[in-house]
Amino acid sequence: MELDTLHHAALRVKDVKTAVEWYRQRFRCEVEYQDETWAMLKFANVRLAFVLEKQHPPHIALLGDPTQFGEPKVHRDGTASVYLKDVDGNNVEILALAPAAVESQ
Amino acid sequence: MELDTLHHAALRVKDVKTAVEWYRQRFRCEVEYQDETWAMLKFANVRLAFVLEKQHPPHIALLGDPTQFGEPKVHRDGTASVYLKDVDGNNVEILALAPAAVESQ
Repeated sequence: MELDTLHHAALRVKDVKTAVEWYRQRFRCEVEYQDETWAMLKFANVRLAFVLEKQHPPHIALLGDPTQFGEPKVHRDGTASVYLKDVDGNNVEILALAPAAVESQ
Repeated sequence: MELDTLHHAALRVKDVKTAVEWYRQRFRCEVEYQDETWAMLKFANVRLAFVLEKQHPPHIALLGDPTQFGEPKVHRDGTASVYLKDVDGNNVEILALAPAAVESQ
């Protein structure tokens, strides 16, 4: 069976730059995106995202078809996603990458 | 540069069996381990763990050498790990797999 892919896990941080520095000083990872409001670090097999409390909840993001789970929100970068809550209230994002981004997933 | 590998992300749940069923009904994943106190689901690229509040905090686990970060705890299955808190208090486990388990990481 082909298994689903986890695109990222997102941790809540107070300051994005400080969090990125903490992880980069200790672990081998690459900054895929960073601004003052969020960042995405690439590891060998998956990504870690850092998000601010006022913008996003901590969550995991699985690649899939968000339309199967609700009404997707389309983001500026062409991705589309839906947030679910699992049975314990953990946040699960179902994420469809933008067509141009699929090859580098 | 070779990047570090995330072994799993662990979510806190109230009932392990209920959580496993919720994810298996919605996503393509395999149960790698399950008992009443924790479970590990395997996805294509990484694992999701479910842990009870009284036993483990929610965390991410990176493969690495725990002795570089503290005094490792050796578990019954031969793995060894240290828990750190990142700069925001998120829990990060540094996990060394048991020798026999390395090939199937």
